[in-house]
Amino acid sequence: MNYRTNFNSAFANRGMGLENDINETNNYYRTYDIALIYKKPTPIRITKTDYENLRITDGFFETQSTLDYNGVYRGFYIEFDAKETKSKTSFSINNIHKHQIEYIKKALKHGGIIFLIVRFTTLKKDYILKGNELLNFIETQNRKSIPLEYFEKNCYKIEIKYAPRLDYIKIVDKLIEEKVLLS
Amino acid sequence: MNYRTNFNSAFANRGMGLENDINETNNYYRTYDIALIYKKPTPIRITKTDYENLRITDGFFETQSTLDYNGVYRGFYIEFDAKETKSKTSFSINNIHKHQIEYIKKALKHGGIIFLIVRFTTLKKDYILKGNELLNFIETQNRKSIPLEYFEKNCYKIEIKYAPRLDYIKIVDKLIEEKVLLS
Repeated sequence: MNYRTNFNSAFANRGMGLENDINETNNYYRTYDIALIYKKPTPIRITKTDYENLRITDGFFETQSTLDYNGVYRGFYIEFDAKETKSKTSFSINNIHKHQIEYIKKALKHGGIIFLIVRFTTLKKDYILKGNELLNFIETQNRKSIPLEYFEKNCYKIEIKYAPRLDYIKIVDKLIEEKVLLS
Repeated sequence: MNYRTNFNSAFANRGMGLENDINETNNYYRTYDIALIYKKPTPIRITKTDYENLRITDGFFETQSTLDYNGVYRGFYIEFDAKETKSKTSFSINNIHKHQIEYIKKALKHGGIIFLIVRFTTLKKDYILKGNELLNFIETQNRKSIPLEYFEKNCYKIEIKYAPRLDYIKIVDKLIEEKVLLS
């Protein structure tokens, strides 16, 4: 299940800044054998190749129906997405595709550690919003965006460092602890 | 880390028969909420898009440096690859890329459930070869291929059914049991 899209919409909202920070961090985790987490390749629908099938001569981008990053850490399945907002006050739920919300429900049901990394670019603040917190917010609040205060109260803040840039795995440790306590 | 390749070499050895069976099975698992396992998109290096970035006008295929399928089942990280051989007597280790062997080592170290599904197409036999069995064979045997008898003795056989076609998840249950017993 993939959704046809174009290069601009596929990449515009993702924010290369945050994406770069995450890719750098994942590289660091792989190099130092901390975790094995990759960005999934962007799905592409190929409509034409040259006669030897060596090159793609026509194709278009599709959007991921799942989340962008996944991998393994301490035997646990980790999956997350990266979202950016310029707003200083809230994060619009429209930033998350409907099929991604459905996917988050399923992935949690199967026992994955599922979350979003949300960056408030203007404020230079990064948070980890847990999948179940997100679903809970959507189900219980009649709001189209999540206020910054909600992040401050209910989410883990990630501090930017020199290396790795966005050391989110320490927070994943906390999510694992919570999961183990609940099970 | 991706390796430049072409359409033929990227797809020739994969065997559409086995790949189709696995995709169908994964669809079944998703539909009936049994497991959440996907084939990763083939990575593509894009060298040109049209002026609006709506379409890809030039690009080439890269080979996956990891394994082709991954996902979550009972909270565990699952990753595997599918390999086919026409041989009636053995499975050549050349079918597995060197970077995939390195990857398997790492993924096992991080606690993933890692294996290959190997199909002997002529014999119509499908086996699950565990990642650590494969590494063990490579390290201890001075052979370039794994004989069929090795599969019969050391691997789990998967029987073809109507639906799902290739019900490998029952064997994953056994791999999880072994893992839990060892930990």
